[in-house]
Amino acid sequence: MQRIYIKDLKEYIDQEITIAGWVNVRRDHGKLIFIDLRDRTGLVQMVALPNHAEASEMAGQLRSEWVIEVKGKVNKRPEKMINADELNGDLEIEILDIKIISEAQELPFDRETELNLDTYFDNMPLTLRTPEKKAVFIVQAVIVQAFRKFLISEEFTEVQAPKIIGADAEGGAGVFEVDYFGNKAYLATSPQFYKQIMVGVFERVFMTGNVFRAEKHSTSRHINEYTSLDFEMGFIESHLDIMKMENKLLKFMVGELKEKCSVEFELLGAEIPEVVDEIPHMKLKEAQEVIKKEYGEDCVGEPDLEPQHERWLCEYSRREFNSDFIFITHYPVEKRPMYTYEDENDKGFTKSFDLLFRGIEITTGGQRIHNYDSLIKGIEKKGLDPEKFSFYLQAFKYGMPAHGGIGMGLERLTAKFLGIKNIKEATLFPREINRIDNLLNK
Amino acid sequence: MQRIYIKDLKEYIDQEITIAGWVNVRRDHGKLIFIDLRDRTGLVQMVALPNHAEASEMAGQLRSEWVIEVKGKVNKRPEKMINADELNGDLEIEILDIKIISEAQELPFDRETELNLDTYFDNMPLTLRTPEKKAVFIVQAVIVQAFRKFLISEEFTEVQAPKIIGADAEGGAGVFEVDYFGNKAYLATSPQFYKQIMVGVFERVFMTGNVFRAEKHSTSRHINEYTSLDFEMGFIESHLDIMKMENKLLKFMVGELKEKCSVEFELLGAEIPEVVDEIPHMKLKEAQEVIKKEYGEDCVGEPDLEPQHERWLCEYSRREFNSDFIFITHYPVEKRPMYTYEDENDKGFTKSFDLLFRGIEITTGGQRIHNYDSLIKGIEKKGLDPEKFSFYLQAFKYGMPAHGGIGMGLERLTAKFLGIKNIKEATLFPREINRIDNLLNK
Repeated sequence: MQRIYIKDLKEYIDQEITIAGWVNVRRDHGKLIFIDLRDRTGLVQMVALPNHAEASEMAGQLRSEWVIEVKGKVNKRPEKMINADELNGDLEIEILDIKIISEAQELPFDRETELNLDTYFDNMPLTLRTPEKKAVFIVQAVIVQAFRKFLISEEFTEVQAPKIIGADAEGGAGVFEVDYFGNKAYLATSPQFYKQIMVGVFERVFMTGNVFRAEKHSTSRHINEYTSLDFEMGFIESHLDIMKMENKLLKFMVGELKEKCSVEFELLGAEIPEVVDEIPHMKLKEAQEVIKKEYGEDCVGEPDLEPQHERWLCEYSRREFNSDFIFITHYPVEKRPMYTYEDENDKGFTKSFDLLFRGIEITTGGQRIHNYDSLIKGIEKKGLDPEKFSFYLQAFKYGMPAHGGIGMGLERLTAKFLGIKNIKEATLFPREINRIDNLLNK
Repeated sequence: MQRIYIKDLKEYIDQEITIAGWVNVRRDHGKLIFIDLRDRTGLVQMVALPNHAEASEMAGQLRSEWVIEVKGKVNKRPEKMINADELNGDLEIEILDIKIISEAQELPFDRETELNLDTYFDNMPLTLRTPEKKAVFIVQAVIVQAFRKFLISEEFTEVQAPKIIGADAEGGAGVFEVDYFGNKAYLATSPQFYKQIMVGVFERVFMTGNVFRAEKHSTSRHINEYTSLDFEMGFIESHLDIMKMENKLLKFMVGELKEKCSVEFELLGAEIPEVVDEIPHMKLKEAQEVIKKEYGEDCVGEPDLEPQHERWLCEYSRREFNSDFIFITHYPVEKRPMYTYEDENDKGFTKSFDLLFRGIEITTGGQRIHNYDSLIKGIEKKGLDPEKFSFYLQAFKYGMPAHGGIGMGLERLTAKFLGIKNIKEATLFPREINRIDNLLNK
């Protein structure tokens, strides 16, 4: 018999159906046994009646997380038993037959217990099975596909960038080393070079792949492997074109979330943000003046923003511009990577930006250097050896348009959209200094 | 002025427009200078006339791959100059003004030269810029997005699987080692364990991420890093349900290719395959009987197929079933990974399959063991230690439905669809034993 999804049961009142899923919980009420069955679409209450002796006996053996297939009849609940707030709150399955697909061992903790993070991570194959955790990753799946869908509609081409790289690209710390047939190789900290190279081929490209950061700090903002959403586009006037594209992207993303994930946001008590038509932007030095004037802290002239500064600026943007998002531009040359474009009209500062949202940076982007000689100079200025970048540099040797792009972490974006405090809770199987699935023995 | 894409020029006859792109080639005909300009959408011929002295002088300096912005007038070509077979073969741009965005150095080889593979790879930032190479990766982008689009429509949830793993999962050779803060970690050879775990959460999941194989052989079929298209689904009857889903997926994919990539297939002289409603399938031993009978080679009882056998079976399928695709099922237990489901009715053989297409295996899939105790036995049978799989095993400890799935390499699929002999030519920046972008110094 065809399996029916639990969310569709209301269409089968008074009919015999087959459903399948996990036993969420069993409750014995004297001779009546109640089983809540869970599938990917929802929950339903089933009841084993004493007059179906075999099914009833089997129902008595069931435990949480057993996987079963049930033949049953969909009955309307009596008026006074109806729970209007719940999916299937007005119906009940009368169990006719149970087939056990898998038994399960006793759960290591009670379902209702509030778990600490380590226990949650240690037991992810089980702990991910709650509606709240599932909601997080449903939202994440919608975000990543919305990213692709929007960029495809803007004529971007998806590109597969390799993760094993030959040289530590940006000369920073924080790169994992791989033994590559006896040679030293590294894991990419971003697809930056490949997306720039591909601008020379397709003009507009994007990618959604994993990147790796060997950063030793373990904070609620960082993980050592994450999914990076990247786009890069050519023939721009300046970084403002990139910001416009990102603004449109976010509007589209939020539209998709409203259409597809309102249930998940409600379940998690989170609010889908609004994206204004023109996200406000200001230069770093202007932002620092705002902080001084509005919040009394003098950080004018510092090369970067502190976390508290980012929170203040988001609050200010919310209040002054009615926007949850604000772009901060023109970070100093020395704080940005060697490929960042210096503003001709504001020497020492770059046509780069961070996008702040709900108190934190969620995107880094900007215009890149497209002139070969300038790029060589940029590399040398950082104390790096252009020879090591010879493959990448070919793109510039043979003609590149003015271009730029952004990168954003999918997990951080998911967390911020959903109001999740620790990014690890928005990450499937987070890698951190002490953990790869299980805690590492040091 | 707004930039116009070259493919849209025909809508601007007799108008002044701005276009931008790369100089494909310059031809001097006495006082007339012809420039073919290329953008992501196509090529157009431009002419600098002596009466626009400044533009004409500038045109004379242009070289291949310079990036320029051109203001020009779209003129119809005189009747006898029309080339009906070409995009923009009936028009020409009269150059009014040229702005140079980037110069380019002299190309290292003539555009028309047939390059050997090493030269092609050494110079990829440049050599990818030809229409033929671009076509390959446009097709690849459509394939991967079609994969996602279809599975989302079938209620699969996308999942982000980590690439850094704690233990060499399947105990095979060919895994890269990573230095993980002083601990040994590895690069995933497949997302297998995570997709199975996630069946316990979402029932149906897919992922499109990179995987890594430290295989030392360098052949036209293998690369050391590739994009793996994976799906996994629960509540199946058997491997036949997986094959049906893949059949539908391929039909959808081919539909998308027909709609979006007919130009690219034509350019590459390749044919989009037809996918029959029911791809034929036979057991390995039946396939071996066919080979014996039809091709005279006795491989009956061997545990696997040789490349030549795969080619024969594809030819046979084409001839007998009018299908470019054929499933071979029931590979022996010892040839398949420890999680593979043994057929109760055909002991020693598994409910697994390979999908053959145009002479080669493009997918491996099958039903997986979902019973905890059987899985432990499967692990032990392969001489592996269940303790090392404790994280993964939790999914089974706490109840898993019957399930299965497939994995296929995006680059191999692209190559086979397009009739490309060497998989490396369908790979952006292929990693092989001697190459990470540049050749490695050994």
